[in-house]
This record gives sequence, structure tokens and C-alpha cells, in this order.
Amino acid sequence: MAIEIERKFLVTGEGWRQTDARRYSQGYLSRDPARTVRVRCVGAQAWLTIKGRSVGASRAEFEYEIAFADGEQLLKLCDGPLVDKFRHRVRHAGMLWEVDEFLGDNAGLVVAEIELSDEAQAFERPPWLGEEVTQDARYFNSNLAAHPFKHW
Amino acid sequence: MAIEIERKFLVTGEGWRQTDARRYSQGYLSRDPARTVRVRCVGAQAWLTIKGRSVGASRAEFEYEIAFADGEQLLKLCDGPLVDKFRHRVRHAGMLWEVDEFLGDNAGLVVAEIELSDEAQAFERPPWLGEEVTQDARYFNSNLAAHPFKHW
Repeated sequence: MAIEIERKFLVTGEGWRQTDARRYSQGYLSRDPARTVRVRCVGAQAWLTIKGRSVGASRAEFEYEIAFADGEQLLKLCDGPLVDKFRHRVRHAGMLWEVDEFLGDNAGLVVAEIELSDEAQAFERPPWLGEEVTQDARYFNSNLAAHPFKHW
Repeated sequence: MAIEIERKFLVTGEGWRQTDARRYSQGYLSRDPARTVRVRCVGAQAWLTIKGRSVGASRAEFEYEIAFADGEQLLKLCDGPLVDKFRHRVRHAGMLWEVDEFLGDNAGLVVAEIELSDEAQAFERPPWLGEEVTQDARYFNSNLAAHPFKHW
């Protein structure tokens, strides 16, 4: 188990865009916020990830790499529509930002995440960083499948 | 992925009892019958198992061994009470029967399962075998946690 400490922001402009973004397809075997179970396929790899309830910006996380063929089958077992996105990895002032550009029913939504070693850790804001949405449950990927951005 | 083909029976008498039965503790991250996610700890080992919806006696199954420490943590994330049981492994006429003697709120319930290679496969009935309950959802382990035998 790891503890994931993550802050999430909207973005402005296009300065976050990378040409080597990778396509992510993911779905949920459980969307229960106390025990989400995510299936994720990226390229020829797949993972199963379990997360506990968020406490502030922290969350228990368990991640297992699985066979890609299993990942593809498990996506079909998932509850409701999948979440598709391009993930752009952007370095800024020594920190790694993961910028998710959503597709399909969530097209138009772009969210930047930074993983921290503790909740109070300081970081420099990239010029394209917008409003913080860490606590806003609408932006949880587990909610974006059932309640996509186009219906907000 | 594997396809699990399993038939389930009640038992009579005590002829199924083995002295080397092992204690199983398991819980569910998802009880949704279309996508159950089970955490199971046995001795010093742990597994994560995902099953799709049953079609007759068949069900898609994905099983991953995980670190025991993860298993213990994941049991705490599970939805509702855990299912505790002794599993007795009984050979009869060349087939392996798994006989689950439930504990706690399910004490008094004993269920025998046989895994088959196809749904029509013939097998010899052990003398202690009782009524078949393959199709009765009350006996799903995922339901025994939320609706234990003592409340039936």
C-alpha cells in the first residue's frame, strides 16, 4: 500500500500540451468512494488500482500490473462508460505534472495533477495553472464516467 | 482470465470434515454480481479475485496473488462484515470437493463446491452430498457477508 497525496487543478491556455501524450482508457469495477477499483489500459500495459476514501488530499492506494489481455477483458466488466484521455507529462521547476485531456463525453475538460510527498509541500505554479479542484468530487475520474463533463 | 464452472451443494452429516482444513478470511470491494471484487487471506497468502456475472454455472474469473500485507489492509477497506470459514478439501472418486464450513454470523452453514471443466461434466456424488444450490444467490459468498445465515 502507498499513500497518494495529490492536488488537482484546472488549466488555462495550451502551454501544458505535449506531443508525446499517451492514451489512457479506464473504467471502474467499483465507484464507491470508500473503495474504488479501477482498470486502466495504457499502450500494451494494464493495471488494477484500488483506492480508499480521500482524507484531505491523501488516499490509500494499491496498484497491481496485470496482463494486458486481462485489462482488456476487465474493461468490459466495468460499470458504465469508460473514461478516455490523453495524459501529458509536464516537468516544471523540478516537479512532474500530469495533465489529463479528456476525450469522448468529457471532451473540453483538462485537469492537471501533482503528486506530493506531504500535504504541506510547496511547489511552483506553472503559468498555465488555473483554479484548484482537489476537493471537488465532480472531477474524480470515478465520477467522470457516470456524470461526464458534457452534462454539467 | 479463466472461466469458472462450479456447482454448489448443501451437505449432510460429517463425512466431509478434514483435520487439515484451512481458515479463509474474505471480504468484498464490490458485491455487484456483474463485477464482484474479492479480497481473500489464507495463512500467509492473499489474493484479489474479480468475477463477472454468472451464466448458468459459469463465470469469468480473474485472480491475482498480492502481498499478504496488502491483503490485510484491503480487508479493512471492504464493504461490510468479512466472511470467515474453514475450507475442507475432500477427494472423492477422482474429483476435488471444496467444503466451506462457515463461521461467525454464518455458523451452521456448510456448502460443498465442485469445479468442472464443462457444465455437463458427470461426477460421482459423495455420500454426504445434499441439495444443489448452484442457482440460489443467497449462498453466494458476496451475499453471505451482507445477509448472513443467522438472519435467514
